[in-house]
Amino acid sequence: MIQQYIDLPTLKYLLYNVHGLSNVLKLDRYKEHDLESLGLFLDSVKEFSDRELFPYFREMDESPAAFKDGEVIVHEQVGVMMKKGGEMGLICGPLDYEIGGLQLPFIVHTAATYILDTANNHLPGYLTLTLGAAELIIHFGNTALKDTYIPNMLSGKWGGTMCLTEPDAGSSLSDITTKAIPDKDGYYKIKGQKIFISGGDYPYAENIVHLVLARIEGAPAGTKGISLFVVPKNRMEDGELVNNDVVTLSDFKKMGQRGFATTHLGFGDKNNCRGWLLGEAHHGLKYMFQMMNDARIGVGRGAAAITMAAYQASLEYARERTQGRKLRSSGKKNPNESPCLIIEHPDVRRMLLLQKTIAEGSLSLILLAAKYHDLQLAENDIALTKKYGLLLEMITPIVKTYPSEAGAIAVSNGLQVLGGYGFCTDYILQQYYRDIRIFSIYEGTTGIQSQDLLGRKVLMAHGKGLELLLNEILETITEALTMENLAPYAKILGDKISLTQEVTAHLMPIAKEGDYERYLADANLFMEFLSHLVLGWVWLDIAARAQQNMLEKNKTYSTNFYESKIHSMKFYFKYELVKTNALAESLMHKDVLTLNTGKDYF
Amino acid sequence: MIQQYIDLPTLKYLLYNVHGLSNVLKLDRYKEHDLESLGLFLDSVKEFSDRELFPYFREMDESPAAFKDGEVIVHEQVGVMMKKGGEMGLICGPLDYEIGGLQLPFIVHTAATYILDTANNHLPGYLTLTLGAAELIIHFGNTALKDTYIPNMLSGKWGGTMCLTEPDAGSSLSDITTKAIPDKDGYYKIKGQKIFISGGDYPYAENIVHLVLARIEGAPAGTKGISLFVVPKNRMEDGELVNNDVVTLSDFKKMGQRGFATTHLGFGDKNNCRGWLLGEAHHGLKYMFQMMNDARIGVGRGAAAITMAAYQASLEYARERTQGRKLRSSGKKNPNESPCLIIEHPDVRRMLLLQKTIAEGSLSLILLAAKYHDLQLAENDIALTKKYGLLLEMITPIVKTYPSEAGAIAVSNGLQVLGGYGFCTDYILQQYYRDIRIFSIYEGTTGIQSQDLLGRKVLMAHGKGLELLLNEILETITEALTMENLAPYAKILGDKISLTQEVTAHLMPIAKEGDYERYLADANLFMEFLSHLVLGWVWLDIAARAQQNMLEKNKTYSTNFYESKIHSMKFYFKYELVKTNALAESLMHKDVLTLNTGKDYF
Repeated sequence: MIQQYIDLPTLKYLLYNVHGLSNVLKLDRYKEHDLESLGLFLDSVKEFSDRELFPYFREMDESPAAFKDGEVIVHEQVGVMMKKGGEMGLICGPLDYEIGGLQLPFIVHTAATYILDTANNHLPGYLTLTLGAAELIIHFGNTALKDTYIPNMLSGKWGGTMCLTEPDAGSSLSDITTKAIPDKDGYYKIKGQKIFISGGDYPYAENIVHLVLARIEGAPAGTKGISLFVVPKNRMEDGELVNNDVVTLSDFKKMGQRGFATTHLGFGDKNNCRGWLLGEAHHGLKYMFQMMNDARIGVGRGAAAITMAAYQASLEYARERTQGRKLRSSGKKNPNESPCLIIEHPDVRRMLLLQKTIAEGSLSLILLAAKYHDLQLAENDIALTKKYGLLLEMITPIVKTYPSEAGAIAVSNGLQVLGGYGFCTDYILQQYYRDIRIFSIYEGTTGIQSQDLLGRKVLMAHGKGLELLLNEILETITEALTMENLAPYAKILGDKISLTQEVTAHLMPIAKEGDYERYLADANLFMEFLSHLVLGWVWLDIAARAQQNMLEKNKTYSTNFYESKIHSMKFYFKYELVKTNALAESLMHKDVLTLNTGKDYF
Repeated sequence: MIQQYIDLPTLKYLLYNVHGLSNVLKLDRYKEHDLESLGLFLDSVKEFSDRELFPYFREMDESPAAFKDGEVIVHEQVGVMMKKGGEMGLICGPLDYEIGGLQLPFIVHTAATYILDTANNHLPGYLTLTLGAAELIIHFGNTALKDTYIPNMLSGKWGGTMCLTEPDAGSSLSDITTKAIPDKDGYYKIKGQKIFISGGDYPYAENIVHLVLARIEGAPAGTKGISLFVVPKNRMEDGELVNNDVVTLSDFKKMGQRGFATTHLGFGDKNNCRGWLLGEAHHGLKYMFQMMNDARIGVGRGAAAITMAAYQASLEYARERTQGRKLRSSGKKNPNESPCLIIEHPDVRRMLLLQKTIAEGSLSLILLAAKYHDLQLAENDIALTKKYGLLLEMITPIVKTYPSEAGAIAVSNGLQVLGGYGFCTDYILQQYYRDIRIFSIYEGTTGIQSQDLLGRKVLMAHGKGLELLLNEILETITEALTMENLAPYAKILGDKISLTQEVTAHLMPIAKEGDYERYLADANLFMEFLSHLVLGWVWLDIAARAQQNMLEKNKTYSTNFYESKIHSMKFYFKYELVKTNALAESLMHKDVLTLNTGKDYF
């Protein structure tokens, strides 16, 4: 019914004009690529998505992944995703040439995966988890491990997963109990269970390679005693794959993203599960978290993509559906007039513009993070790699959280645009509404991201990360102040920088007094506060580029296109950025109401 | 798995202490009732809900209402609800003795229905729609109609519905096309289709009585040409029920509230559908809207109930689930400590307190509206009935909207408390999350309620409604100012009254200039703004009662109970009421961004 799921011109505009892909391509690592071929690559990903992803999106929801007779059943399109995804370089893309990769800028790989996500968010996870698992082996594995696993994983023949969570540990990784017992020939016997393993089992890969956090016998308690193991579903013995005693115990039935299998795995039930240590013992969590940054950007990307797809669906509906009439100056309506399109009603426009600013703002934010990743990786100047590394670390919790939280609100507004139909399964909005809800839980909940932001990132390197971020924002403000129509907004954003400093000045003494529990009690609000500041910046940056591009002689886009970006910035400032006021007031409020003082307030 | 779905002591506290049920019982109309018997009645409703409603809640979601071979299939518990609900007086409760009612205060009937809603929100709608339809017949029907329909409806033998929406009209009732052609014997031939008819068909009632908006041939265009008809599924002929040519065309498949049938009905396909005019021709919409106030309070009640049930489920989980450890002053955790209950984590407490303040605040708000209904109906002094009538009209859009919108946020936080499990169908939170989403669409979307609030209610009687409301709030402020620990909060709420006046002073000139479209463009934000003001009042009122009751000699509840109410008020002020700042800033912002100026900003 709905055909449109992405605004490709905007994606390219953000990639080329706002984030200056051509500058990224000047870096040695990416010099073999050019703008034109990358543009064609993105077009081919879009065509592929039109053909192989979007048409199966609804049926993957209606016939969800299931567990039957010990086997996980998924839609057969998972097989197509893995095979074609491998062929198109969607797994190996960002990796080094020497390991079989394409040395694609991460920002381009992110854009490509984003396209897949907009078309069908139940499928790309099978690819990205395989890439994540492969990266861990590439970074920390020895040659034998790399030779065994990498080629088959990059081609999509073998899948990969990350196995962190356990039934009794949840987000508390220090409580992991999966055991690893040293055995002969350098391998370990693995024994334990893992839950919530995305893409943990499916029949369309010859093998699935699990990257498992486990505790070597006798290791210290807590996160410091955790090691990382490669534990394949089938292990290679004498050139043949034999069963490695990894079994699927069940598949979680979920409210959304039902085509993406979420499994409960058992390792070593028959005491015959072998794992190979990656890197050094007891360093597993550190290794895992090196990949976690990308995984968290990936979560933000998925949420941003669903937000975009839902926006397109709502927009298409609003442009076709007639209902009601415009208000006349008397406040009445004329029933003899023919009904107008609902997109003419201000409140519908408000909901659509909210969707748009969150969708495009989130997209620009994840592209920014991907660019920082590229610059950190490929800049020659060590001071610059350090700078972009800090900036990336600083914004990662926001990149994971904002698209997930604001995206859920955007999609809810999108559902509302359709009225009663939005709640009915004949329309797609209710699926987006269910699907996006998991993103604020994936890879560390919003609560955990917020603790990370305020508890670690704001404090790291003596506050250097936050300082760098504010400086980047100030640069955009300085530029926008020179543009007459943007200057008032630049000034507002400048005031928000001062407000940020006021908030941190209020919070820091609490941390310094050692009252960490209280310091972090409202970390979620700080996350929301800083997210709005960052998104205000993202939008001012887009508006500044649009303003500049609009005045150029050979415009790539229509004047209307540029104006719509500036209009969206204004919308974000009027309706969203203003929320920082209230958040700052809460954050600096004298009442401390959420610490456990022993009283039962519930 | 979860057993608790309501906080009955809090419901009774709000009913007896905060809203002073004993004062309502002093009115002539209710003088036969006493506090004790009403308390026992509510207990019996709770026991009934434990036994007949809550146990079927999940299976009604898992085996939703369906349409097969021309028949609507619903869970057999619908039959129990209608039969027992009729027997227990849950349909006839608020009606006059002389028509077969119990003259129960509406506030008590609302509390009873709320209990049903918390236990299983898929079932009570069958009762409340029957009551609503019966009330229309009682108010506007002649004796013959009343005799034919009322006894069977009040006993639950026959069901009732409201048929407003049509496929091409949606919320725009002026576009209704269902036709009524005068025929002999005073009836009309009805021809047309209605969609989204809740409880529109089910096999557990001998008959279903539809209250149908239709247009008599030759009637003027627009809302002024709409009449109201009684159109039974089976009509009475010679003492027997014969088919009245009302057919179910389909049952809408929905994301949530799946046990509550939502039908597409066809009237007069064989030209043999008879309808009886209620009251005068062309006054149908006015009649329908007299019932609409109660229907909208009913929507708020349902949403408030789901919010409560979800809160109880989250709370139960948080009190049993261990995960992680408390932060020490170093900011680190001790992995050798045993894990703590998640309810000890400040962020979990924040989410639970947000749920609690929204759940209990919404409940108190709907009880307030029900009390206004009682006072309007039963006060002897005409000045008072007028006053409470205006107050009721003033707050009705908020009573419908706040529990629906804030409730959805509360339930989302409740889901988040469970982490990954919250997204899984093994736990109930995801069902509440899906169920509550319809409430901001039912009986006029949030957009429509907001237009009603700012476009009609704020302006009605030269602003008298708003003035009365602000005066009520000022009374509570004045009282709270005399209580030392509440005075600072009373002062804050007083400031918010001034802010409200500032906002309306900004908006009024726009309406006076005749620029209604712009005046109403941000009506949704005004709704949110005024809702927070009203909820701040609701909480200050609860806190003032708690403060007073705590000092009494013979306390009904524990000191902890009263303290928890005051604590919740503080929570609402710190985290929610503050949002009025940002909303006021948006409302008074100079940028006008959502009017259709012909430019394509999407």
